[in-house]
Amino acid sequence: MTPDPDRWLDLLLQANILKTTPRTGWHLRWVAQPEDVAAHSWGTAMVALCLAEMSGEPLDRGRLLSMAILHDLAESEVSDIPRMAVRFLPAGAKNQAEARALAEMLGGLPAADSWTELMEAYKQEADAEARLVRDADRLEFLLQAWVYRRATGNELLESVRETYREKEFATAAAQAVADRILARWPEMGAGPTRS
Amino acid sequence: MTPDPDRWLDLLLQANILKTTPRTGWHLRWVAQPEDVAAHSWGTAMVALCLAEMSGEPLDRGRLLSMAILHDLAESEVSDIPRMAVRFLPAGAKNQAEARALAEMLGGLPAADSWTELMEAYKQEADAEARLVRDADRLEFLLQAWVYRRATGNELLESVRETYREKEFATAAAQAVADRILARWPEMGAGPTRS
Amino acid sequence: MTPDPDRWLDLLLQANILKTTPRTGWHLRWVAQPEDVAAHSWGTAMVALCLAEMSGEPLDRGRLLSMAILHDLAESEVSDIPRMAVRFLPAGAKNQAEARALAEMLGGLPAADSWTELMEAYKQEADAEARLVRDADRLEFLLQAWVYRRATGNELLESVRETYREKEFATAAAQAVADRILARWPEMGAGPTRS
Amino acid sequence: MTPDPDRWLDLLLQANILKTTPRTGWHLRWVAQPEDVAAHSWGTAMVALCLAEMSGEPLDRGRLLSMAILHDLAESEVSDIPRMAVRFLPAGAKNQAEARALAEMLGGLPAADSWTELMEAYKQEADAEARLVRDADRLEFLLQAWVYRRATGNELLESVRETYREKEFATAAAQAVADRILARWPEMGAGPTRS
Amino acid sequence: MTPDPDRWLDLLLQANILKTTPRTGWHLRWVAQPEDVAAHSWGTAMVALCLAEMSGEPLDRGRLLSMAILHDLAESEVSDIPRMAVRFLPAGAKNQAEARALAEMLGGLPAADSWTELMEAYKQEADAEARLVRDADRLEFLLQAWVYRRATGNELLESVRETYREKEFATAAAQAVADRILARWPEMGAGPTRS
Amino acid sequence: MTPDPDRWLDLLLQANILKTTPRTGWHLRWVAQPEDVAAHSWGTAMVALCLAEMSGEPLDRGRLLSMAILHDLAESEVSDIPRMAVRFLPAGAKNQAEARALAEMLGGLPAADSWTELMEAYKQEADAEARLVRDADRLEFLLQAWVYRRATGNELLESVRETYREKEFATAAAQAVADRILARWPEMGAGPTRS
Repeated sequence: MTPDPDRWLDLLLQANILKTTPRTGWHLRWVAQPEDVAAHSWGTAMVALCLAEMSGEPLDRGRLLSMAILHDLAESEVSDIPRMAVRFLPAGAKNQAEARALAEMLGGLPAADSWTELMEAYKQEADAEARLVRDADRLEFLLQAWVYRRATGNELLESVRETYREKEFATAAAQAVADRILARWPEMGAGPTRS
Repeated sequence: MTPDPDRWLDLLLQANILKTTPRTGWHLRWVAQPEDVAAHSWGTAMVALCLAEMSGEPLDRGRLLSMAILHDLAESEVSDIPRMAVRFLPAGAKNQAEARALAEMLGGLPAADSWTELMEAYKQEADAEARLVRDADRLEFLLQAWVYRRATGNELLESVRETYREKEFATAAAQAVADRILARWPEMGAGPTRS
Repeated sequence: MTPDPDRWLDLLLQANILKTTPRTGWHLRWVAQPEDVAAHSWGTAMVALCLAEMSGEPLDRGRLLSMAILHDLAESEVSDIPRMAVRFLPAGAKNQAEARALAEMLGGLPAADSWTELMEAYKQEADAEARLVRDADRLEFLLQAWVYRRATGNELLESVRETYREKEFATAAAQAVADRILARWPEMGAGPTRS
Repeated sequence: MTPDPDRWLDLLLQANILKTTPRTGWHLRWVAQPEDVAAHSWGTAMVALCLAEMSGEPLDRGRLLSMAILHDLAESEVSDIPRMAVRFLPAGAKNQAEARALAEMLGGLPAADSWTELMEAYKQEADAEARLVRDADRLEFLLQAWVYRRATGNELLESVRETYREKEFATAAAQAVADRILARWPEMGAGPTRS
Repeated sequence: MTPDPDRWLDLLLQANILKTTPRTGWHLRWVAQPEDVAAHSWGTAMVALCLAEMSGEPLDRGRLLSMAILHDLAESEVSDIPRMAVRFLPAGAKNQAEARALAEMLGGLPAADSWTELMEAYKQEADAEARLVRDADRLEFLLQAWVYRRATGNELLESVRETYREKEFATAAAQAVADRILARWPEMGAGPTRS
Repeated sequence: MTPDPDRWLDLLLQANILKTTPRTGWHLRWVAQPEDVAAHSWGTAMVALCLAEMSGEPLDRGRLLSMAILHDLAESEVSDIPRMAVRFLPAGAKNQAEARALAEMLGGLPAADSWTELMEAYKQEADAEARLVRDADRLEFLLQAWVYRRATGNELLESVRETYREKEFATAAAQAVADRILARWPEMGAGPTRS
């Protein structure tokens, strides 16, 4: 066994911050008390597990689920910089910041190398597992937008529907579920609000 | 690929409820706006991943993390009946209710058999993966109690410390981290409040 | 006066938990931060008081309101196991658990016998007061569903309307108010969301 | 039966606002997400019921509990103007405002006269039931302050302890419970924070 | 420099309460977790700044923004007595209470006289700056009602639209923005809910 | 008057997002439901106003308060990237991102040039007003940390005290208030929690 449980405990304390880190993308769409990053990370793992079953392909589930669970860990240091904000940062700056934060968090842990490799593969969608988790991350977002739309009537979430109508997923399984969400998304028909 | 993405989508909609299902055990201890079950499930998977690394044992990580992610899924139907309340129910009633709810949720899905087997193994701590996830579930609870204690000063959480002083974990890795939490738990010394 | 104010104080501390115990039925319908059990208990008492006035019948208001105030007290131990979950438990298990929890909470108090009798009468709708409080409990739920529907647009709450269209209340007063809620419930017409 | 269920329904819709009306006194003491008026009203009724049992005196429980349930109803119109703020208003202005709001809310209802009489008796502590509910209202506040103190460490709540050390309750039962709260309130000893 | 930083610090501690003082008007319209007074005060200052730019008139921006920032300061003592409740109070009672509370809060501070003059000018809309801030206060309310309407579907907020259709603003700039809000407010067409 | 009220309305809608944008720095310190950016911006303006009075120096209050109100406006696009995270980004990247977002938000508005100049002066602490607002921003943070410490017992906030013990403010007024906060910060003496 590893000689330093305190080092692992410090990592778990850091990771615990994700339970109180809200997903900023929702704030930008007027969702007042949205899910936190921890709940989204679980949702991503849950979706990934379903997509893996749907796909019928031979996937390394340990690798797949580790990616899903760890994929937003760096946000406990960097915060959840929303997708819309990335265009204002230098190219690659967000990914680099997350890589640096992760390096600091994992420094000295025996798992540092393998988890770093995992996260790099994920960011670059380097293998089938990474592509599936990437799809799961996005599908989880679309699903949550639909749930918020139906649970709160939030009109701004229609923009998520618009965006995903034009997006293509990497895997057939994710595409199939996304198509069903878009087909079942109710017409709630608020009129034009921009002049 | 599975012929019915709608069936999978219905499962994901059901699972999504865990994001707004609070962990009742905290309410009973005066934690007013506690974590939800989804965040705890992610925390359990995160702890399990760390414990697996610490243990150095050959574990099936796909099985391990699937268990962690799915272990409270039935609570989206049954709600989170708190541990303290189980003694008021007939023996085995809670486990049975969760098994029935899970059967209903998974009915007709190709993954039904394998996931049911997984959950039964978990409930009975039938293999090394199940024992580790069980430890992770309890360690995650102790860790969160410590975090709430330090973040809010909630005095009732001292009872969790008392309980875990006498508990033994199945794995050396979990025991080592728990020992460090108990050692670092600050003396906050509120006087006796029961007459 | 009773010789032991500490014993009564312990009961009040236990009861206080209802102020932070959310009503789980709302979580299952995507209401993110719903009312707590204490607020619902007050609402039930308020509705019961109105129904008693409407009915014009000679009712024991002390008995009536005591029932309303105490009717969910056991949930401070057992948590609010949602109605939808009861079918997964052995028949009678929820009522039995609540009776056991109540016995423990009231043990040694001079009011134990009379309050226990009250709660049993309520559960069995044994008299006119019990039947009215039962109606008040359900009417309060329908009223709150309507308020949440109008205040948040939550589409899932339409299922409550559907359920209550077929329900009959025991008292004419409750039926009359319920009929008005259903008549005034606006058509908000979201399309079909199940395939 | 009353010929107009719609009129009763409008009253219940108005009363429902108490479920989302926070108790302002807590905000002034830095309690960020405090209980609402509905939960406090239930707490007052619960305390009153216990005090009635403790007292052993012959009390009209229907009158007692109606007072507790209705005692803050006018706050659904007037809001909860905190005790500390009353000194800035003309003498009697708050009571008068609540009486006017109540008159408007109850106008045309058959219960208007009897409920108005009830509320006036309560405000003037005109009988044994009114005095007990008044004590219950204040004891519930002290109890909640103690719970918040223990659950959140909020240092400002010590001022409530100071205030109640000098207060006397009208009934021996309330005094006995208050004495136990003050005796069991832990010494948490933050130093002086005013220069 | 002023000889007594502690006195200023006490004022800032008092003012800080506005961060946890909810705007009561929203509660009366079923908005469960609305903005606090501090956020509204910032919004008012932001709107006032824009209106000043729009107007092109020579305004004293220091005076203008001081008014906006300070205009609800007394609510940290008095609480936010909602507009709908003012009709139940003696004429002028609310303004007088706020003036008294402010006098107490500022007592002994060198800024007491100038800030008191500022607040009195504001209440009486005595100059161009006061009229603009008054418009900003109301426009901010209309804007927030529209945002809540679109973000939560809350049907009760339609009454705000109705009210503002008949209101006239003192400044052309505020009127122009209000007209655009009303023009862009989507038709969401819930049917009649009063019998 | 400006010919395009819709353009101003769009800016106000964008700015409104600050009311639901939480201050991320608190999440990283386990403050679960912290203040939003709008409330902090008001607090900064309030502190700046007090410091200006304390200083006795001739300051342009219009410039001063405009800076305070606008200083975090870009966070409605970029989100609140916490101070601790800046070290992971390329030097200057955060400021540049905020400048770009602001340019986009203000594009086409007559105030664009003057507000951009204002924000640049603020970022570079180029004049007395900018230095005072910078101090106000930091003092407001220290004050809020102290309030959270006293209101919730959150132990992690001790690190803020440590940090500010070594910091120097640019203005004597800010330094004087900060010294009083540190002097009055109670000793709450949790033991060491790092091994």
